[in-house]
Amino acid sequence: MTNEKLLVSVALNAWNTNIARAEKTFSGLTQEQLQKEVAPGKNRLIYVWGHLAAVHDGMLPLLDFGPRLHPELDASFLTNPDKTTPNLPTAEEVRKAWNNVNRKLSQGFANLQPEQWLHKHTAVSDEDFAKEPWRNRFAILLSRTTHVAYHLGQAALVPK
Amino acid sequence: MTNEKLLVSVALNAWNTNIARAEKTFSGLTQEQLQKEVAPGKNRLIYVWGHLAAVHDGMLPLLDFGPRLHPELDASFLTNPDKTTPNLPTAEEVRKAWNNVNRKLSQGFANLQPEQWLHKHTAVSDEDFAKEPWRNRFAILLSRTTHVAYHLGQAALVPK
Repeated sequence: MTNEKLLVSVALNAWNTNIARAEKTFSGLTQEQLQKEVAPGKNRLIYVWGHLAAVHDGMLPLLDFGPRLHPELDASFLTNPDKTTPNLPTAEEVRKAWNNVNRKLSQGFANLQPEQWLHKHTAVSDEDFAKEPWRNRFAILLSRTTHVAYHLGQAALVPK
Repeated sequence: MTNEKLLVSVALNAWNTNIARAEKTFSGLTQEQLQKEVAPGKNRLIYVWGHLAAVHDGMLPLLDFGPRLHPELDASFLTNPDKTTPNLPTAEEVRKAWNNVNRKLSQGFANLQPEQWLHKHTAVSDEDFAKEPWRNRFAILLSRTTHVAYHLGQAALVPK
């Protein structure tokens, strides 16, 4: 295995580890359990989970893996705070979106050659990328991995 | 810049970003503010900060950068839960340890060539590493970066 490939595989392990932790945290909970807040007055677990699904869905166009699968998540889980929008998607709908999105991301990751991780992500212009070559797909993978961890730290505060 | 070097620099950016966020979260707080819990009955901010300093101190021998600088942190912040040990280090002592440790880590990072990130960390045997080459320094960097993010998510719940 080349050094490049090994560096990428370590980062994919970190992603997969955190996705597996999120699965373990959220996917076995009932609709009722998902109504618990991570701390008094803070986001509910359903919001955190839907937020992660929405952010991961946004990775698809950003990594040039295709269009978003679930843009309908944004209004409930991304652009508005928790408890401000009516008719939140159900646990089952969030679960389905979460699974769809992460499956599609895994397929995209598997198709990338190591050097393709260093291509620019789609939200940076050619001109800016020439000056800032670290604004690449690999940076998106790492920042979204820490983003999952950030919210897992919060979800861990909810009594079992 | 080689591809290897660019992959490593993206990961170092992610580390530095999260360390800077931790600085912003903790280092301006008073001894009194650091007594706040991240959620009712959960760890206090002083414990979270000391815990991060202790874990980062443990990275020094793990990455073969030299002996630990502050092993005295462990009893208060790592091996025992919060609120179970008397005479916790003060905010000033934690701040000093945090700065020492992260400075020493930065020096170590700066001295590594890209391929040295793929050397085994010191807690894995030669035999195991031959079978599991992803148990390397780079994996430690990524897992400790997500670890900081995990606790930053918790600290962010404390009202300003």
